[in-house]
Amino acid sequence: MLPHSDRLQALRAQLATQGLDGFVVPLTDEHMSEYVGAYAQRLAWLTGFGGSAGTAVVLADEAAIFTDGRYTLQVCEQVSSDDWEYVGVPETSVAAWLGEQAKAGQRIGYDPWLHTRADVRALEAALAPVSAMLVAVEANPVDAIWTDRPAPSPAKLTLQSDELAGRSSAAKRADIADWLTSRNADAVVLSALDSVAWTLNIRGADVDHTPVALSYALVHADGTADLFVAPDKLDDAVRRHLGNGVRVHDRADFGVTLVNFRDKRIVADPERTVAAILDRLEQGGATVLAFRDPVVLAKALKNDAEIAGHCAASIRDGAALTRFLRWVETECPRGGQTELSAAAKLLELRQATGALIDTSFSTISATGPHGAIPHYHVTDESNAPIEPGQLFLIDSGGQYADGTTDVTRVMPIGDPTPEMRDRFTRVLKGHIALATATFPDGTLGGHLDSFARRPLWEAGLDYPHGTGHGIGAYLSVHEGPQRIAAPNYPGGAALEPIRARMMLSNEPGYYKPGEYGIRIENLVLVVSRDVPGGDRPMLGFETLTLAPIERTMIDPALLTKAEMSWLDEYHAKVAGTLGPELDGDDRAWLVAKCAPL
Amino acid sequence: MLPHSDRLQALRAQLATQGLDGFVVPLTDEHMSEYVGAYAQRLAWLTGFGGSAGTAVVLADEAAIFTDGRYTLQVCEQVSSDDWEYVGVPETSVAAWLGEQAKAGQRIGYDPWLHTRADVRALEAALAPVSAMLVAVEANPVDAIWTDRPAPSPAKLTLQSDELAGRSSAAKRADIADWLTSRNADAVVLSALDSVAWTLNIRGADVDHTPVALSYALVHADGTADLFVAPDKLDDAVRRHLGNGVRVHDRADFGVTLVNFRDKRIVADPERTVAAILDRLEQGGATVLAFRDPVVLAKALKNDAEIAGHCAASIRDGAALTRFLRWVETECPRGGQTELSAAAKLLELRQATGALIDTSFSTISATGPHGAIPHYHVTDESNAPIEPGQLFLIDSGGQYADGTTDVTRVMPIGDPTPEMRDRFTRVLKGHIALATATFPDGTLGGHLDSFARRPLWEAGLDYPHGTGHGIGAYLSVHEGPQRIAAPNYPGGAALEPIRARMMLSNEPGYYKPGEYGIRIENLVLVVSRDVPGGDRPMLGFETLTLAPIERTMIDPALLTKAEMSWLDEYHAKVAGTLGPELDGDDRAWLVAKCAPL
Repeated sequence: MLPHSDRLQALRAQLATQGLDGFVVPLTDEHMSEYVGAYAQRLAWLTGFGGSAGTAVVLADEAAIFTDGRYTLQVCEQVSSDDWEYVGVPETSVAAWLGEQAKAGQRIGYDPWLHTRADVRALEAALAPVSAMLVAVEANPVDAIWTDRPAPSPAKLTLQSDELAGRSSAAKRADIADWLTSRNADAVVLSALDSVAWTLNIRGADVDHTPVALSYALVHADGTADLFVAPDKLDDAVRRHLGNGVRVHDRADFGVTLVNFRDKRIVADPERTVAAILDRLEQGGATVLAFRDPVVLAKALKNDAEIAGHCAASIRDGAALTRFLRWVETECPRGGQTELSAAAKLLELRQATGALIDTSFSTISATGPHGAIPHYHVTDESNAPIEPGQLFLIDSGGQYADGTTDVTRVMPIGDPTPEMRDRFTRVLKGHIALATATFPDGTLGGHLDSFARRPLWEAGLDYPHGTGHGIGAYLSVHEGPQRIAAPNYPGGAALEPIRARMMLSNEPGYYKPGEYGIRIENLVLVVSRDVPGGDRPMLGFETLTLAPIERTMIDPALLTKAEMSWLDEYHAKVAGTLGPELDGDDRAWLVAKCAPL
Repeated sequence: MLPHSDRLQALRAQLATQGLDGFVVPLTDEHMSEYVGAYAQRLAWLTGFGGSAGTAVVLADEAAIFTDGRYTLQVCEQVSSDDWEYVGVPETSVAAWLGEQAKAGQRIGYDPWLHTRADVRALEAALAPVSAMLVAVEANPVDAIWTDRPAPSPAKLTLQSDELAGRSSAAKRADIADWLTSRNADAVVLSALDSVAWTLNIRGADVDHTPVALSYALVHADGTADLFVAPDKLDDAVRRHLGNGVRVHDRADFGVTLVNFRDKRIVADPERTVAAILDRLEQGGATVLAFRDPVVLAKALKNDAEIAGHCAASIRDGAALTRFLRWVETECPRGGQTELSAAAKLLELRQATGALIDTSFSTISATGPHGAIPHYHVTDESNAPIEPGQLFLIDSGGQYADGTTDVTRVMPIGDPTPEMRDRFTRVLKGHIALATATFPDGTLGGHLDSFARRPLWEAGLDYPHGTGHGIGAYLSVHEGPQRIAAPNYPGGAALEPIRARMMLSNEPGYYKPGEYGIRIENLVLVVSRDVPGGDRPMLGFETLTLAPIERTMIDPALLTKAEMSWLDEYHAKVAGTLGPELDGDDRAWLVAKCAPL
């Protein structure tokens, strides 16, 4: 395996042959995906960086890697400072750094299949004052030197039944067609992988943890669609499922197809569509209409079948998690267990349900100080023993055909300290404050976030992440457009109105660097609340996730009567629903854990 | 007086002589002021509309007036539907309406001294697709036909002593100079009237309720300034106060001066500077740097003298308000009082302090159903008798040399209903929740707003306005940049970080259309909070306004112990501070009103 230092030199040589003085290497794919397939892990291959967000820029004499605060430590450990400068975002943007480093007349390359138009414009604007030029490459220079680059996954498409999807693809496409007609548009480009999957009721396995296939779709104002996907991914059952209304093409032909829409009005979401797609549409004479992908909101509003499916998945997943939590309490104090062995145990228990298709993300199994790293990812190198006196934090989820789960619990190994209990109880109070909120229909996620923080704020504390993200129905574990977070959360997601039938996580936390981390995460469904005497439509949350919240971590003296009632009622529901799924000691343990506080 | 219908026809004739097919009439002045002098009341003169926000557009065959939801009723009453179409903003923007109405080849005029560049771009973008043209006029066509247009106010400049201002103008200008130097800029245009007043420690009386003079300033990187103001406004004392570092010019020369900055880098705030200023700077070859006016934040962070001044004003104002509230309780149930007589009584009591310079805005004296109109403005026509069974709402403030006040109280005329008490108590709970909030330094105003709403949300209720606005130090009663409001509050003010030394109002409310309105408003100061055991700098609020909150309106059963303590402590402070300012029956009344609940 070529050392990373040699890879950097090889890339510089390749840039020279392509007539470039520099190149930008983002971590995404042609669909602006959050998680990407192995074939698209160019940043990791080039630099050694294993985090899930970052960008590299390579110039003849300089090279820099851009990561946010979550990855400050990781990038230093994994990426050599001999070759790379570490740059923190958002303090310094890629564009700003390039504007300072690039010299007059230089040609800085980018792959137009890996950047939005807004990215491209920001880079251009930064380079213009120094008379350097931004150049779209025809072929990605990293791919030219990455000789053992993995092929795109050969995984087959699977069908999502109308029963689980709750709505046929034809009906979904008819809605999109109506939406297009109302905007006098001819078609919409769906390039987000989960938008394609949701619209056509198909799933795949080309991306880690997210059941989607590498594909594009065009949905037309007549309700038909063109699906662009590797042909060997389809079997007869899927072809039948897609039906006559969906024309199947090779994914490799997508780019050339885009120039065939002269004088057509084509919708493309500027946040979810790469520049290359817009370039081709415009080259072919299409009028591009910049609207948000209409699937984004439709997909966020879960139908009855999706909600019922999620509830079934929650029971199955909650029973497995309950078994696991008992195992943690019983086995970990005896010694010999590690973050990896615990994650393996939980996977085994989820697999024992017979319904697990994948984990919904890489399990965060974090003990002691690792718990204080909100996005900790255990590896062979970092794997730590689970030891008495620690808090053990487990944030995990499953992909099931009927639903995607995501849940966080914390267990003390032995007795927690009074400080740990104080912090846990404050996090719980914030969790309950959000879970019990009533608010007008359409309230922004950023308007609700502070409810979850106030008990920590009162102690001079906070947590450095959002409070809630959307979640898919056997799709992405992080699904937009809504989010509960500070109003200036990046990307504007916290300024999205919250609507009935959205699903969100509720996950406040507290992190004491070098010591421990706490997070309590349940998924919630947004429901209408009929408030007698009220004068407007109101919403609230219904908690979906079922698993005990560790009682020995709670200081009851800090809870109000109403908070105590919420907890007791939640635990009664957990015991009542999961109890029948469990046997013997597991059931007895659950019942004891769920007794009124 | 020419009827409004004739004015419209006269304007159309004038447009024809200027070669225009239409014209846009906003309600602002050359400084983008919220309140404008009589000379700039073109919208009211043309249409009869007396609200404080709106725009008219006149075309050859169409004319429309654009107002927001606050003025839906008022516009229908005051503006004839024979001549004018009523259009609601933000549902339909002026630009969108023009884009639909304008025809190919038409020339739509605008006065570049009354629009920001962003306004102009939006209008251009809307007209371009229909091949109509936006044209900047040299002379405002309304002024050409407004033969009895008031002259600009001749009021003199007054000086604000360094003692009250807390900082000399030279020191303030030195800070601005440092700021300019750090941005490699040569000068900044101050076109917001309160920015000029604050920077030069001067005040004026050219605008209703706001002690500012019509003027512009340029502050240079050497700390000197050019002030553009009508020369007859200055006397020797003010000239001496301004000193050698401030060159005085005629305001009429401002426009031509702007073309004299070839190759200079001039800061102009795109939100606070009209297009004409930017146009002239660019015509003259200056590089315009789009930064926020540096005075905006500096002015928002009150210094010790400004805070001490405000506290002195609050005691003086609170004592006058207390006398008034007792008068309401005693006199109004006897009959014969009206909204106007009550407002006059309050003005008389404030004037009796001997320190009142002006009211800080047009007093909202609203009884019964009028209270449900958050921005109600009593006129001879609307004036209603104050009658038993009603709630009487008084929202008012004073301009004193040491501070600007703004306070709202509600008094029942006779016994309030249980519903009124429930609503009032919920508003009070929200008020207390915000007043007692602790939050990290830099938290956005939009992140705090929901604390004030939750008790109403729980009853299915809400209020249709923000919760808090900034306030000036003997300046504007509404002062940016900060605001506590829903995160999508127009203009982005709710996305401004809250900092220590900012002053804000805390004014949740509840409005039952056709019946009554409730609002409880105090001003608060943002202060550092030392939280033992906390891990970051925290802030909180210190309530500045002093006046009893009507106890018969409160349902104690709805208050928590902590809320009750807050109220009792607040009332103890009110009685302790205002008591010595009052005599006899007034003092006894105050003490009784402030007894523990």
